[in-house]
Amino acid sequence: MDTHLRKRLEIIVEAPLQRRIIELLEAEGLRGYTVLPCLAGKGHDGAWQEGELSAAGAMRLIVAIAPEALARRVLASLRDLLVDYAAVVTLSDVEVIRGDHF
Amino acid sequence: MDTHLRKRLEIIVEAPLQRRIIELLEAEGLRGYTVLPCLAGKGHDGAWQEGELSAAGAMRLIVAIAPEALARRVLASLRDLLVDYAAVVTLSDVEVIRGDHF
Amino acid sequence: MDTHLRKRLEIIVEAPLQRRIIELLEAEGLRGYTVLPCLAGKGHDGAWQEGELSAAGAMRLIVAIAPEALARRVLASLRDLLVDYAAVVTLSDVEVIRGDHF
Repeated sequence: MDTHLRKRLEIIVEAPLQRRIIELLEAEGLRGYTVLPCLAGKGHDGAWQEGELSAAGAMRLIVAIAPEALARRVLASLRDLLVDYAAVVTLSDVEVIRGDHF
Repeated sequence: MDTHLRKRLEIIVEAPLQRRIIELLEAEGLRGYTVLPCLAGKGHDGAWQEGELSAAGAMRLIVAIAPEALARRVLASLRDLLVDYAAVVTLSDVEVIRGDHF
Repeated sequence: MDTHLRKRLEIIVEAPLQRRIIELLEAEGLRGYTVLPCLAGKGHDGAWQEGELSAAGAMRLIVAIAPEALARRVLASLRDLLVDYAAVVTLSDVEVIRGDHF
């Protein structure tokens, strides 16, 4: 079966940044994303746990799939947006079935 | 330390499809999987958010690890099952410690 | 834009082991991690679902990013800690923007 190479973009950020990141993804032309809840973590700014933080402070994991050129353009924009935040942004290789969807 | 190469299969689907996908994974001989909740997203069918959708419409992320040949067989079966749905299916490379478990 | 190669460590375990795994990650020098909730799954010990298990028995997905040498050291320590448990531990390649954070 044919598959297509794409990039998987994974972004871990504080919940209040979710809206701005999704706006950025859509402005760059990304066609989809998924947001998952996080329970606890530790980052550049120290450890946190749901309940300790205000609801607004909870973390989110945002996943999106894109062609490599678009993913790298998004990565550059995310770097500028997140320069002052304790976000984690990673890029990795994936194969997808329906290349026309991403 | 020795590790073993396997494939990581990641499937994002509407909750009502979870049972059928797990039945497919088990029928194909996959020995394990994990289901995570999603909070919001946007796909081929438009944007959604938990609470907007009925509980039944919430999304799930299903992760499973398998040897490459099995993973590709599962991918082909998933393509047939999901042809009419806005699912995201990706395959990627991972190393595992205990090759006899996957 | 320059990116840096790192390893993504993903650990799926029962919630009661979360604390010991995070202690291990910190003892090995890992600078961050994120914990996500799981809803259901099937592993070496059989299938489970949130609500069936006691709250203590729910599963967690722990993600962390590290340089390769550190990730492999952590992998060896995790193998020893988890030898009697139905955990899933995977290692994969990622690119990150801010190499000084990981």
